[in-house]
Amino acid sequence: MSRPSLDYWFTMGSTYNYLTAMRIQGAATAAGVEVVYRPVRNVAALTGAQSLPFIDGTTKYRYMWRDIERRALSRNLPLRLPVTYPSKATLLANKVAQVATAEGWAGIFLRAAYPLWFAEGKPNGTEGNLRAALIMCGHDFDRVLALANAPETQASLDAATDAARALGVFGSPTFAIGPELFWGDDHLEDAIAWAKTGRLAR
Amino acid sequence: MSRPSLDYWFTMGSTYNYLTAMRIQGAATAAGVEVVYRPVRNVAALTGAQSLPFIDGTTKYRYMWRDIERRALSRNLPLRLPVTYPSKATLLANKVAQVATAEGWAGIFLRAAYPLWFAEGKPNGTEGNLRAALIMCGHDFDRVLALANAPETQASLDAATDAARALGVFGSPTFAIGPELFWGDDHLEDAIAWAKTGRLAR
Repeated sequence: MSRPSLDYWFTMGSTYNYLTAMRIQGAATAAGVEVVYRPVRNVAALTGAQSLPFIDGTTKYRYMWRDIERRALSRNLPLRLPVTYPSKATLLANKVAQVATAEGWAGIFLRAAYPLWFAEGKPNGTEGNLRAALIMCGHDFDRVLALANAPETQASLDAATDAARALGVFGSPTFAIGPELFWGDDHLEDAIAWAKTGRLAR
Repeated sequence: MSRPSLDYWFTMGSTYNYLTAMRIQGAATAAGVEVVYRPVRNVAALTGAQSLPFIDGTTKYRYMWRDIERRALSRNLPLRLPVTYPSKATLLANKVAQVATAEGWAGIFLRAAYPLWFAEGKPNGTEGNLRAALIMCGHDFDRVLALANAPETQASLDAATDAARALGVFGSPTFAIGPELFWGDDHLEDAIAWAKTGRLAR
């Protein structure tokens, strides 16, 4: 019998993905569920949207940050507001995540990079973020960046983005078990339960 | 010491509000939290959006129905897909909810009306829905409709909508404890915990 698994679709530009990145590996491992990391290019590439999911100055934008702040506090996650958003270097962050996925160290890369963005002022994909995160991951900056900037990495990321769009993924993070999608950090527990049992917990 | 309470902002046109309507009174009562029902006109009146929150034919639309289906199943809630959406009679449904709120029977009105929409093919606010729901509520159709169509009811609904917008409410359902907003059925437990303790549960 194969071990239950879920596909974890994400972009390193996603704010709510901070909450997921910090807990998915631990929660899934505790439940005996394997996490398959699936970075994509960005949300706009999935949906065709012309604008960001969250726009500064809107009530939804303010809500998003307060929502993240409350949950970060309750989970003892570091956070220093205001957080720079969006990160202009999201694409490079996702390319590095693609390299990390191919080499099997995506989990630690996410858990290193995100707190550097949300608590240390170094947005994902910027050189300061990548240099510090890659030291934490134990990987050489120049080697990883050369791989990240290779055409093969862009091609892999594009193929993953196409696959996500075909599956119906429209936001980050999304968890998929076959055709069943669960969108948002709030639904991680549902996704883990579904991976194990094919139904929701209650 | 006053009993903890939360404001439950909603519109009868909201799909996810089905999940909340069926459980909020029971969950809040069990936790010793009072529910203050606050119907609003519709989501567009809150956000200024020109389009519905969910558009037929999009991946997000398909996801929304599957998400509701899975949760309805896990909660033993009746559901017969496809559900007619949007209901063209949402305004009248919200006016009746406003009357029910003023008279203290909003909880049972929501629990009667929503299953008639989601399982019996009678969208909220249509005559078939209101006739059947008001019988379940033990109230006279003609009396309630006369009140619902009175200018005072429209004025109350408009005032509530303005208050919600001023608070930063942008979707339905939203739970508010003072300035703290919790958006979506998924966050009902967080809102109840916040009403009681001023923090999230974990």
